[in-house]
Amino acid sequence: MSVEKCGAAILGFGNIGSGAAELLKTNKARITQSAGREVVLKYILDVKFPENSEFKHLFVSDFALIENDPAVTVVIETIGGIRFAYDFTKRALSAGKSVVTSNKELVAMYGHELLTIAKANNVNYLFEASVGGGIPILRPLSQCLAANEITEIYGILNGTTNYILTKMSEGQSYEQALKTAQELGYAEADPAADVSGKDTCRKICILADLAFGKHINPNEVSVIGIENVKNALTAEGKVKLIGRAKKLGGDRIMIRVAPEVIAADHMLSCVENANNGIVVKGDAVGEVLFYGQGAGKMPTASAIVADVIDCVKHVNARKWLYWDDGDRIELVSE
Amino acid sequence: MSVEKCGAAILGFGNIGSGAAELLKTNKARITQSAGREVVLKYILDVKFPENSEFKHLFVSDFALIENDPAVTVVIETIGGIRFAYDFTKRALSAGKSVVTSNKELVAMYGHELLTIAKANNVNYLFEASVGGGIPILRPLSQCLAANEITEIYGILNGTTNYILTKMSEGQSYEQALKTAQELGYAEADPAADVSGKDTCRKICILADLAFGKHINPNEVSVIGIENVKNALTAEGKVKLIGRAKKLGGDRIMIRVAPEVIAADHMLSCVENANNGIVVKGDAVGEVLFYGQGAGKMPTASAIVADVIDCVKHVNARKWLYWDDGDRIELVSE
Repeated sequence: MSVEKCGAAILGFGNIGSGAAELLKTNKARITQSAGREVVLKYILDVKFPENSEFKHLFVSDFALIENDPAVTVVIETIGGIRFAYDFTKRALSAGKSVVTSNKELVAMYGHELLTIAKANNVNYLFEASVGGGIPILRPLSQCLAANEITEIYGILNGTTNYILTKMSEGQSYEQALKTAQELGYAEADPAADVSGKDTCRKICILADLAFGKHINPNEVSVIGIENVKNALTAEGKVKLIGRAKKLGGDRIMIRVAPEVIAADHMLSCVENANNGIVVKGDAVGEVLFYGQGAGKMPTASAIVADVIDCVKHVNARKWLYWDDGDRIELVSE
Repeated sequence: MSVEKCGAAILGFGNIGSGAAELLKTNKARITQSAGREVVLKYILDVKFPENSEFKHLFVSDFALIENDPAVTVVIETIGGIRFAYDFTKRALSAGKSVVTSNKELVAMYGHELLTIAKANNVNYLFEASVGGGIPILRPLSQCLAANEITEIYGILNGTTNYILTKMSEGQSYEQALKTAQELGYAEADPAADVSGKDTCRKICILADLAFGKHINPNEVSVIGIENVKNALTAEGKVKLIGRAKKLGGDRIMIRVAPEVIAADHMLSCVENANNGIVVKGDAVGEVLFYGQGAGKMPTASAIVADVIDCVKHVNARKWLYWDDGDRIELVSE
């Protein structure tokens, strides 16, 4: 059968961007079946051109080419950071292209503004990959649990720190564990964003935003990292770095990031190594947990391509997955 | 603001049906916000009329009233079993009404036929509540993991048997544990469908169907229950009743239900008491797990109302959540 084609472009060809390109190629048939349209990767924007990439013919250095090509319906932003990603995302959305991203920093800071621009241009801005890697969490939260009053969300949202704490609970020192994590590629040469809790903070802010419909600036949240954790295994249970957002009375929510002792009989104490586990508490459903690899090339690509499928599937249908609501709320940091 | 109204009817006012009615009432504002329309419960069909139910004015005994009321867009079928549910579901779909159900027996046996009828009538047949109670699993499987080649699905799909096995691993005998489960209302007076593995079998068949796009008749699957489990705690790990569907070469899949020994470091060994845990393995995402209460009045109502929201939201848009494919496949039972 012949199906309509939809052009796609990838911004930033690092670990995640190349994973998305590979997955679009490897599972093309299944992706076309799910989307009802064929997703054709047309451009890859990056500053460095790879000599021997199978995708080298797609590389461009000028974003305007993508911005002005009406054949491009979906832009995959995997540049990371704010500077270029913010500008390119705004321009892509304004040009009537849906944008899919794994960029938690950008979503946590400017998600609401970008959702508003997407809405105004009748396109989608999707970011399932920005929290929990390939673990389905944002869509289940906003769709499958839509009948619930969400009262709390908490969990292990950063694989690097969870790996370090796991090794520490097995007897390694913080320094040893960090070194192992770096050798295995779990931790950056500069692990600050992970061990300081900053990365976890961005993710819990995105989750709180979707669950409570309020934008929370990560910079206003009280964050304690794992740098000063001496003992990751106490008599009361294992120490885990937990991001937590809880609905309080009225319009107030408590949100914080800190190491917490998790009792041995709690599911989160079973979440070890580089895995993530996210608990959502709803008034009807009780507690549900979502678990899996919270990062990594292909798991993250899995979430990105699922969002791409969703954009392509609804390319002609007005449909937004997430509401947006710019109201401020009173933060209660503990 | 004034929003369009959508009429709903509940078939069968037992535990689940009454939970759905309560949830539609309690969280009305949030449900209207998510759906973009107001869901108005118009009829409740049941053989017995409750004397002092707040919903007594909605009770009817003639399905034709619902079938012929154009104001009813969604029918919630919580009768259970095949006999009436099958007939009413076909008639509702044929009358152009979407149907939402928690009826795993009906979905496992006639899901494909009913999806085909739904498609022909441009309505939805949704059954998130038929597997894992309130745990989001069918939608994540068919949407969030759509970019993956799903290679295997396995897990703890029945809360009653998991509760019994948990108590046995704590030292109770099978008979003691079953008695406790019955006293707590986890197990029916006649626990056959649970302890025999039949209930787990229906659920793994529904999951395999969605994951592999093939209808599997539960009656063709090899099923071993827990009646003969003597020891639920071995040196190698805990014994759990596992439903398992695995893709083999070509068009073949292995599907079975049996007690399995789960190693202590596997997430499923942390799934205790009446909870469910479902693992989905994809070529890109790796293993993800979904955990929560697999049954119960309000958790199940949570999944039902989420499906209702989805039907109402897309009442004017052609949209099917699940593909259907009537092909038969070769079953390899172990």
